[in-house]
Order: sequence, then C-alpha cells, then structure tokens
Amino acid sequence: YGRPPTPSSVSAKKPRRMVVVRAETINPDIRKTEDKVVDSVVVTELAKPLTAYCRCWRSGTFPLCDGSHVKHNKATGDNVGPLLLKKQ
Amino acid sequence: YGRPPTPSSVSAKKPRRMVVVRAETINPDIRKTEDKVVDSVVVTELAKPLTAYCRCWRSGTFPLCDGSHVKHNKATGDNVGPLLLKKQ
Ligand code: FES
Ligand code: FES
Repeated sequence: YGRPPTPSSVSAKKPRRMVVVRAETINPDIRKTEDKVVDSVVVTELAKPLTAYCRCWRSGTFPLCDGSHVKHNKATGDNVGPLLLKKQ
Repeated sequence: YGRPPTPSSVSAKKPRRMVVVRAETINPDIRKTEDKVVDSVVVTELAKPLTAYCRCWRSGTFPLCDGSHVKHNKATGDNVGPLLLKKQ
C-alpha cells in the first residue's frame, strides 16, 4: 500500500530554474508615453543638403541622429545606422 | 595544523549561477554583412506624397516600412514606428 513510486526519470531530477528571456524592446527611453512614435518630415522644409535621421533609438536628439548608433553598435555587435535625407 | 577554516560567510553560500544578459542588438537580420546599414533618400526623387521609412528593423521591405512594427510592438510592449516623408 502507500503511494505508487514516482517515475525515477522525473523524480531523480532537481527542479529546473526557468529563465524566460522576453523579446526585447528596441526603444528603451524615447517618448514612452506615446503609443507609437511616428515622426513626419516635410521634405521641402529640410534646411540642409544632408540630414541624418536616427533608426537606433539611442539619439539624444531623436528623431535626428547624433552619432549614438556608434556606441550602441560597439556595445552589442549590431550594425544599425541612420537614414540620410538628401536635397540633391 | 591543516588548512585554516574558510570564513563561514563565504563558505556557507552555494555558488551562484551567474546569468549574464548582454545588451541586445536591435537589428537581428537586415544586411548583416554590412558594417553599418545606412540608407540615403534623395528627397526630390520621392514618387509619392507620403512614404514611410522603417525604424524597427523588422520590415520585409527595409528601408521602407511594411507595418511590421505593429507585430514587434505587440510582442514586446515597445512603441516604435516609422519616419514619414511628406512631399507637401
Ligand atoms: S544616433 Fe541613432 S542612428 Fe545615429
Ligand atoms: S515596419 Fe519597421 S517601422 Fe514599420
């Protein structure tokens, strides 16, 4: 009598600690009160012949690129960079 | 004689399993053979009044936005979206 033996293939193992790694946000900080951060550029109003827009979500001058993608790429091995808008 | 006792505050603890979480890349797939993915748009050559450029690095039509930011935002709780270029 008593309980049947637990199958040894299960009972012999210590419980595994589960580590759940969630898919990551790519924007940690910028305008997090907005549901979706969308920016518009009226291209006829661009002041300079070349303007760089950030796609790394690390710029201190977002939506413009301030070069912060360089630090992000070095820290993570990533290869992201800006979108360049050219007037000619 | 013999070894001196190990300090109990250290020896009493089981070794901790270290979990090192590395800073994440934001571009998992696009043009990974390039050191830095930079795109240029000559704004006078834009065909349509409104063109959306991807900033989530998930678009199947990168550098253009194909709406994939919606799936990324839902999966991660993120809030990223495209850069809209407007001719007027
Ligand atoms: S600072 Fe983000 S792409 Fe340059
Ligand atoms: S698909 Fe990347 S911003 Fe829309």
